[in-house]
Amino acid sequence: MSSSVLNVVIVGGGFGGLAAARSLSKSRDIKVTLVDKKNYHLFQPLLYQVAMAGLSPAEIAYPLRALLSQQKNVDILLGEVKTINKEEKWIETATNKIFFDYLILACGSTYTYFNSPQWEPFAPGLKTINQATEIRRRVFLAFEKAERENDQQKQRMYTTFVVVGGGPTGVELAGSLGEITRYSILRDFNHILTYQTKIILIEAGPRILPSMTPELSREAVRELDQLGVEVRVNTKVSEINAKGIMAGNDFIESETILWAAGVAANPLNKTLGAELDRQGRVIVKHDLSVPGHPSIFVIGDQAHYKWGTENMPLPGLAPVAMQQGRFVGRLIKKTLTGKRSIETFKYIDKGQMATVGRSRAVAMYKGLHFSGFVAWMAWLLVHIYYLIGFKNRLFVLFQWAWTYLTFRRGARLIIEKE
Amino acid sequence: MSSSVLNVVIVGGGFGGLAAARSLSKSRDIKVTLVDKKNYHLFQPLLYQVAMAGLSPAEIAYPLRALLSQQKNVDILLGEVKTINKEEKWIETATNKIFFDYLILACGSTYTYFNSPQWEPFAPGLKTINQATEIRRRVFLAFEKAERENDQQKQRMYTTFVVVGGGPTGVELAGSLGEITRYSILRDFNHILTYQTKIILIEAGPRILPSMTPELSREAVRELDQLGVEVRVNTKVSEINAKGIMAGNDFIESETILWAAGVAANPLNKTLGAELDRQGRVIVKHDLSVPGHPSIFVIGDQAHYKWGTENMPLPGLAPVAMQQGRFVGRLIKKTLTGKRSIETFKYIDKGQMATVGRSRAVAMYKGLHFSGFVAWMAWLLVHIYYLIGFKNRLFVLFQWAWTYLTFRRGARLIIEKE
Repeated sequence: MSSSVLNVVIVGGGFGGLAAARSLSKSRDIKVTLVDKKNYHLFQPLLYQVAMAGLSPAEIAYPLRALLSQQKNVDILLGEVKTINKEEKWIETATNKIFFDYLILACGSTYTYFNSPQWEPFAPGLKTINQATEIRRRVFLAFEKAERENDQQKQRMYTTFVVVGGGPTGVELAGSLGEITRYSILRDFNHILTYQTKIILIEAGPRILPSMTPELSREAVRELDQLGVEVRVNTKVSEINAKGIMAGNDFIESETILWAAGVAANPLNKTLGAELDRQGRVIVKHDLSVPGHPSIFVIGDQAHYKWGTENMPLPGLAPVAMQQGRFVGRLIKKTLTGKRSIETFKYIDKGQMATVGRSRAVAMYKGLHFSGFVAWMAWLLVHIYYLIGFKNRLFVLFQWAWTYLTFRRGARLIIEKE
Repeated sequence: MSSSVLNVVIVGGGFGGLAAARSLSKSRDIKVTLVDKKNYHLFQPLLYQVAMAGLSPAEIAYPLRALLSQQKNVDILLGEVKTINKEEKWIETATNKIFFDYLILACGSTYTYFNSPQWEPFAPGLKTINQATEIRRRVFLAFEKAERENDQQKQRMYTTFVVVGGGPTGVELAGSLGEITRYSILRDFNHILTYQTKIILIEAGPRILPSMTPELSREAVRELDQLGVEVRVNTKVSEINAKGIMAGNDFIESETILWAAGVAANPLNKTLGAELDRQGRVIVKHDLSVPGHPSIFVIGDQAHYKWGTENMPLPGLAPVAMQQGRFVGRLIKKTLTGKRSIETFKYIDKGQMATVGRSRAVAMYKGLHFSGFVAWMAWLLVHIYYLIGFKNRLFVLFQWAWTYLTFRRGARLIIEKE
């Protein structure tokens, strides 16, 4: 590593890290090392489709090496960063130690069970492929258990599903469960009526999709209702165990509880010595750097960046991470040619959307609201467009067209854990 | 269960069990229960493609319920048969007990490590989806380990792959490894030259693909050589551990050893009290029933059925299992209308084939031999044709066309075990 080359280390190959790596790729004076504990970029917004057997993991995950194989100044290192030394400027994984001139942290977020980590085994979250296939396994195993059961009360317990958290992921999971039980597997069982499956979506706050308008929240409730999903707002969860879930004053007997509430930033943040918000995100400066450490940037879900008239932190969305990744990339590139100028990251709002099920979605973009089929088409096009890799786009489009026309879901595999 | 209905229990939803279930499906006087520990039918001949990142599990596995949803006289029960009571005529899983008038056992085979079960953790076999994704994980992780390693000797160890067993599966795995390292991932690494990867195929007998002609064996060796695979015949394995494998008089340092040798029938066979062959298969009568138990049939890989001028057992191929399944189905149906006639199962030879890699294969059919591109095209068409479900056929064809044209393999995901 000669001193004339600028060494940039990026931690995390999600939307933010990948955008940063790409914007730094064409320069011979910059050497990029992208560190990730996974060997693939995951298209997180469609992970719920893997959990719901609509897509296979490989259709929404793409090898980082394949994505960056043309970019010769990018090294990829498989590993988890254990230590960051801010003063000596190096990071360390279990196998390698790498010095940096600039560090970009883009590690994303995980689910948190607040002060009840003991709930996790009974209510898996949805952040990784392993978690998605585990949710798939539990959902489809529940129907098998119900089918072979003679006791009607137990059958009801097996065919009761609870989704905790009324954000986009919770809505998407609950809506998909409605679609599966009301359409996809309707004729597949002889001893249960899958359309009688109880699906309950629980939200602690006063409405689902709180980041959207109240009208769209109401519309989402209506669309969910059409799919047989019962929405319970203002309902706090106080206990989850092997028998079910205590939601408000009701104990709901269920073996299949899905967790889509409570996001926390990467635990690495705690080692930075910087101020964190309640979710554990680093409160970054206007140029996304860590206060007091101008060569360390934090972007995406890992960062808390105040924005807009209400001075609220930007939400954990792919467009935010991508725009921040490109911004930091450009900023670092500029330091090659001159002094670092004081710049401010400006977010261009790309709107928000959530799909509820077949032909059902809600979306908002620059003051415009959409719901139903129009919103669903918009959602479809945007997600297809942003899917990484030409082949994956075509495949997923084909897969969806198939599922849409036939109501079938091909990926209903119960792969037993060993 | 009224006495006027004939209860048929089929154990196993592979090629044999599925064929039997389908041939019994149209009769109102027959009630079929298909028991399987998996909820899907697996297209086993393409499982190596999952291990080699060419296909996703859902592309070669199809839910049994979806396959049989039109056949209302078929019940599907998810579970593993633990007990067979031949006298009282019932089988039992962990959750259910089912009486039968006729029982069809079609449980397939597993890999055996002969008297060395301690080798298994170091050399996984390829029978289940879990095993395929585990092999995929090990293979692609090996390149990552080599890439981040500075010690050249360790790099060589990581990029040495050993496949044990020169049957079709071993040849397919070794050939695919050659294709991957010589084409697919050639430009993806900065610190290793993947085309220098050492791939060794080990066979205890005097030639690979022993069920084919000596000419085709030689042709396969030649094709493998073009892909950088070294074939060692007459080589016995005496030890496998975390450091490598003792093959003949050489100890080969390798962390990635794949097992494609030594097939054994289902352990359930031992409980039948019938004569078994050396591989543990039930030696069945001319009508595929168990001697002394005319209402119990054993088909496919689980059965030893002597056939042909040499009186050799039929090989463990999909066409054998499918023909036997249909035969037993017809035989049981006939008992509804009259007395059971003495029938003999006749096998119609569908030939044999093995693919070596891109445009390379060997095949034999009724005395005709093919190799190279022609054999590969034949292999492709036959496998696509027999793939279950219209969508899967199209998808797999598309996937292959893509891989063929671009040399890419999209499913290179290293999913860590938890």
